[in-house]
Amino acid sequence: MRQVSIETGITKHAEGSCMIRIGDTHVLCTATIEERVPPFIKGSGQGWVTAEYGMLPRSTTSRMRREASAGKQGGRTVEIQRLIGRALRAGVDRNALGERQITVDCDVIQADGGTRCASITGGWVALRLAVNKLMKTGDVVTDPLVDPVAAVSCGIYAGQPVLDLDYPEDSEAGVDGNFIMTGSGRLIEVQMSAEGATYSRDEMNKLLDLAEKGVSELVAAQKAATGA
Amino acid sequence: MRQVSIETGITKHAEGSCMIRIGDTHVLCTATIEERVPPFIKGSGQGWVTAEYGMLPRSTTSRMRREASAGKQGGRTVEIQRLIGRALRAGVDRNALGERQITVDCDVIQADGGTRCASITGGWVALRLAVNKLMKTGDVVTDPLVDPVAAVSCGIYAGQPVLDLDYPEDSEAGVDGNFIMTGSGRLIEVQMSAEGATYSRDEMNKLLDLAEKGVSELVAAQKAATGA
Amino acid sequence: MRQVSIETGITKHAEGSCMIRIGDTHVLCTATIEERVPPFIKGSGQGWVTAEYGMLPRSTTSRMRREASAGKQGGRTVEIQRLIGRALRAGVDRNALGERQITVDCDVIQADGGTRCASITGGWVALRLAVNKLMKTGDVVTDPLVDPVAAVSCGIYAGQPVLDLDYPEDSEAGVDGNFIMTGSGRLIEVQMSAEGATYSRDEMNKLLDLAEKGVSELVAAQKAATGA
Amino acid sequence: MRQVSIETGITKHAEGSCMIRIGDTHVLCTATIEERVPPFIKGSGQGWVTAEYGMLPRSTTSRMRREASAGKQGGRTVEIQRLIGRALRAGVDRNALGERQITVDCDVIQADGGTRCASITGGWVALRLAVNKLMKTGDVVTDPLVDPVAAVSCGIYAGQPVLDLDYPEDSEAGVDGNFIMTGSGRLIEVQMSAEGATYSRDEMNKLLDLAEKGVSELVAAQKAATGA
Amino acid sequence: MRQVSIETGITKHAEGSCMIRIGDTHVLCTATIEERVPPFIKGSGQGWVTAEYGMLPRSTTSRMRREASAGKQGGRTVEIQRLIGRALRAGVDRNALGERQITVDCDVIQADGGTRCASITGGWVALRLAVNKLMKTGDVVTDPLVDPVAAVSCGIYAGQPVLDLDYPEDSEAGVDGNFIMTGSGRLIEVQMSAEGATYSRDEMNKLLDLAEKGVSELVAAQKAATGA
Amino acid sequence: MRQVSIETGITKHAEGSCMIRIGDTHVLCTATIEERVPPFIKGSGQGWVTAEYGMLPRSTTSRMRREASAGKQGGRTVEIQRLIGRALRAGVDRNALGERQITVDCDVIQADGGTRCASITGGWVALRLAVNKLMKTGDVVTDPLVDPVAAVSCGIYAGQPVLDLDYPEDSEAGVDGNFIMTGSGRLIEVQMSAEGATYSRDEMNKLLDLAEKGVSELVAAQKAATGA
Repeated sequence: MRQVSIETGITKHAEGSCMIRIGDTHVLCTATIEERVPPFIKGSGQGWVTAEYGMLPRSTTSRMRREASAGKQGGRTVEIQRLIGRALRAGVDRNALGERQITVDCDVIQADGGTRCASITGGWVALRLAVNKLMKTGDVVTDPLVDPVAAVSCGIYAGQPVLDLDYPEDSEAGVDGNFIMTGSGRLIEVQMSAEGATYSRDEMNKLLDLAEKGVSELVAAQKAATGA
Repeated sequence: MRQVSIETGITKHAEGSCMIRIGDTHVLCTATIEERVPPFIKGSGQGWVTAEYGMLPRSTTSRMRREASAGKQGGRTVEIQRLIGRALRAGVDRNALGERQITVDCDVIQADGGTRCASITGGWVALRLAVNKLMKTGDVVTDPLVDPVAAVSCGIYAGQPVLDLDYPEDSEAGVDGNFIMTGSGRLIEVQMSAEGATYSRDEMNKLLDLAEKGVSELVAAQKAATGA
Repeated sequence: MRQVSIETGITKHAEGSCMIRIGDTHVLCTATIEERVPPFIKGSGQGWVTAEYGMLPRSTTSRMRREASAGKQGGRTVEIQRLIGRALRAGVDRNALGERQITVDCDVIQADGGTRCASITGGWVALRLAVNKLMKTGDVVTDPLVDPVAAVSCGIYAGQPVLDLDYPEDSEAGVDGNFIMTGSGRLIEVQMSAEGATYSRDEMNKLLDLAEKGVSELVAAQKAATGA
Repeated sequence: MRQVSIETGITKHAEGSCMIRIGDTHVLCTATIEERVPPFIKGSGQGWVTAEYGMLPRSTTSRMRREASAGKQGGRTVEIQRLIGRALRAGVDRNALGERQITVDCDVIQADGGTRCASITGGWVALRLAVNKLMKTGDVVTDPLVDPVAAVSCGIYAGQPVLDLDYPEDSEAGVDGNFIMTGSGRLIEVQMSAEGATYSRDEMNKLLDLAEKGVSELVAAQKAATGA
Repeated sequence: MRQVSIETGITKHAEGSCMIRIGDTHVLCTATIEERVPPFIKGSGQGWVTAEYGMLPRSTTSRMRREASAGKQGGRTVEIQRLIGRALRAGVDRNALGERQITVDCDVIQADGGTRCASITGGWVALRLAVNKLMKTGDVVTDPLVDPVAAVSCGIYAGQPVLDLDYPEDSEAGVDGNFIMTGSGRLIEVQMSAEGATYSRDEMNKLLDLAEKGVSELVAAQKAATGA
Repeated sequence: MRQVSIETGITKHAEGSCMIRIGDTHVLCTATIEERVPPFIKGSGQGWVTAEYGMLPRSTTSRMRREASAGKQGGRTVEIQRLIGRALRAGVDRNALGERQITVDCDVIQADGGTRCASITGGWVALRLAVNKLMKTGDVVTDPLVDPVAAVSCGIYAGQPVLDLDYPEDSEAGVDGNFIMTGSGRLIEVQMSAEGATYSRDEMNKLLDLAEKGVSELVAAQKAATGA
């Protein structure tokens, strides 16, 4: 596992914010509270948590085209931000949150593999800080964040199971997965795919073992950062 | 497992085509051979397999907006077609295919849950038929389709593990997964996610057991349809 | 005139549906009833009938780009779907229909010339079936479908007037037209154009004669299919 | 027929230009010569004529949204500009033109019905002037403009056949048509449609008779304007 | 300063309109009154003035791509129309105007440098005429147009300060500016930029002196045209 | 003038980078070198400098919509990034740079007024660092950065000329300007505009005096940061 650091209070405007650094992958996460919800849950008394993801054009080795100027978010971006939102919601009691929306923005400042996992882990911290504010003011009474959410990638690189792939490892790995879990060790989402390859259930289990170790380390870092 | 039927030779223009029906889910799959490849593999001697996915506006209970008229493919569509392409490529020896591209189009005529899995299973049949043509003409000598690819969804519905969820089951299931495997029982992709819930490794293993059974049934249907 | 077949009840979700096959041209038509109307007739007591048209990417000899992925409907698509909607409305008493909208989707599964005419003829059948449902439930009392609508293409090919052009004839014809008529022999729309050529009124009249014959055959097939 | 005037040489940059005024309908037409052709005829030795159409936002009674700001050309615009291009090409010998493209832009300054017909009639004048330039310089030797092209609308208004509908007539007419013809009386395109109505062949013939009279008047005005 | 002419009443539909000609630069300006305002001032009792700008495709030496067909307004267009709107608003008492919006459309018919300045100067005339109408009907009581607005470009060309640059001068000038002023000599906006060059405050002052002379000439032409 | 800090070497991938902080306005600037130029200067031997600008969604008091998800860059964004590029090019000898392009990305992390000026000032630092690399490797021999470029905003707030407006001042100021200058005191661009107000030449001169003081302070900070 690469070095993990989580620095909170990065921007003065957001209700919650942090810069998460996992090795050379740096992601700025902010959480915004809005007193409105999407149409499909209006009047239900439940809240919503959603996420958006972006990469700064020069967060990568060579410059990527800015999506705003390309005129649309690419398929990879859309897929990742749907994943982040789904993952965070799994740790939230939406009744306790009440009819409001929290949007978590994850913007990659520097990329070196594992940006979607760093976004989920850092996004949870931003969400935690924003919810703390709602509880301080009494807008929310019961803590809606029932179990912390964190994510790590693992893969089979050079024949060996490897935890927390950096970019060079990730681009070589024939099989890699993203494992999203809770602080209490439950699974939220497993995405394990092979590009031009296949894998056995035994190999899958080895990666799950690694991921469990990685996630518990990340959850500890989240707790340290939020004083929980 | 719902009733499976695969009818080949559905359209006269495509190099390979079938209508796959899994219960009330009907998907038309066609494979198109083009003697060109995407820029990033030009000159490599390797081929490419890609996929596109769409739903007819009234394939669903209430009419969906036509994506062409909305002016873009939604996030779900993009995510699914990337998944189909990745899955099919896992069963292909791209060197044996040679420098050409096969595009598999999966268009949902009628939806009742599991459309992405049906698309992968039916898409493989269309691909198989198109490759047969290339081998008959001698354009391809060694069979590039090394191991059949099929997919099935499973979930936990009403507390019980269920194979091949239909739409009513799928919309109620707190945990569901898509399992893509080969005919020889290797895994290609596992996507198992919880919406507002979590699951244990034990539950995951039960679904994997079910999926293995389902996929072997689907591979048998593929073989029957293509005469392999 | 090529062989005509109309198979109804193709999809379980749509209020009306059919697959129309005119020779090797196959179009799936569905009709969707919605209890709302466009803003410009809200409160008028009148209903609306509109249409959308699409071609599956591999309905044609070589694969066309999917319009949803291109990000917009091409000029030809827009022109055709406006024509279908206008044609169908000519046979509808919009006061009798009441303030609701019926959307007819015409999706070309396999193309061999004459897809817009097949869409109109098949679209009318889907519309007929949907309206039958409204009358059965008593939501509509007076039949709003006053006179059946059907369409056929004719052209001058190799110097001869030809009824119901297939794709090879259509691409060679210097002059061709689409003739939309009612069951009682009235005209709804005539579009007769020359690409890099011209024609006389006499030639136009010969094509109109042919079209009248073709349309009466199509109206008979519509009646047989809907049991009217 | 409303008053017709054609003023040439409206803009100093275009190879051919005119302002055509038919009653209160005013269209600015320019022709641009470019020494390139679309890909599908490259190397064929043939030329191409194409057209674009637009309305200034306040050419109409109430302001229309600017299409450039809406982000796309509407269906009506696309349909009209395809029609104009097709019509003009019918009068052109594309071999005599040689491998170059002429783009005719028709921009409606003030609209009062019949803008597409005015665009065709005025567009031909701009085309004529641009081709004159090519012949003067010797770039083109044989005149490629074989037969002048003009267009007029007719309709059934208050039960009577009417030539050259203005906007109030046009919006009330249940049946109206656009008739594109050559100076020698041949037909290029007939589009005769009914909105929520139908018509007989006899009515169609009456409108064709009117259109022939109108077009011959327009062709005379074209000749006067271009000194032909 | 090039020859200035302002012809009013150009289109019958618009509440105010003029064609402004400054040398070979011709811009058609129309003003549209609408009894609604943008959301951000709803209920404030204040009005709004906004502007849109466009160039006909062949207003320039070589044909430009039509922005409606390109699918978006270019950066230059957006920048110019924001400038025009801001400039015109500086001369308007928005309380006196009352809660309504006036949209000024500036469409360049022929371009030869200085189109944005001509648009502002002509746009003011169209606005003046539209407001006159509102005052005649009594919808507006106190004249909201407090001080006329006009604009001129100046630059340093061949080492010399030059007033009202035409296109050849403008494309050669290393430094050029747009100066928007009121009839009483106050400044509204100064935009003075250097492309690959720099300038001194002394040079800036010389251009300001020239601009003052130019603007007073333009304001006189505005007054003559509107009979003020 | 608010507190200025410039921290270099912020991202490991970019050829030059810094975080500029002017009070609570924080902008991340990166410079990317590419060995290609835009088509219009290909083969000229000259280089190009261009810029792109963006704001993170929660860089502002309330969350802004992400431009990538809105599907286009807004008018303000386009205007600002054109300004930044123009400003930076004024300090560059494009012949000395040689036929390559440097793209400066300015992404606002936290906004409190003056983001465009901070982008120019910080963008110059990123550019300086990237060019230093080119000179170290010998790819560029003569320093193309002839005179440093920096920018500051000034305005009339509560009747007083104010240097370096923060957001609350900026939104209240009736007159404000952006002043872009070189280290040697030459002007590059002056944009001084009034929203619903006007100003005199005397007021303009007072702001220019202030701006000169501000820019010399910024140039000193640039030099300290780049060790020049």
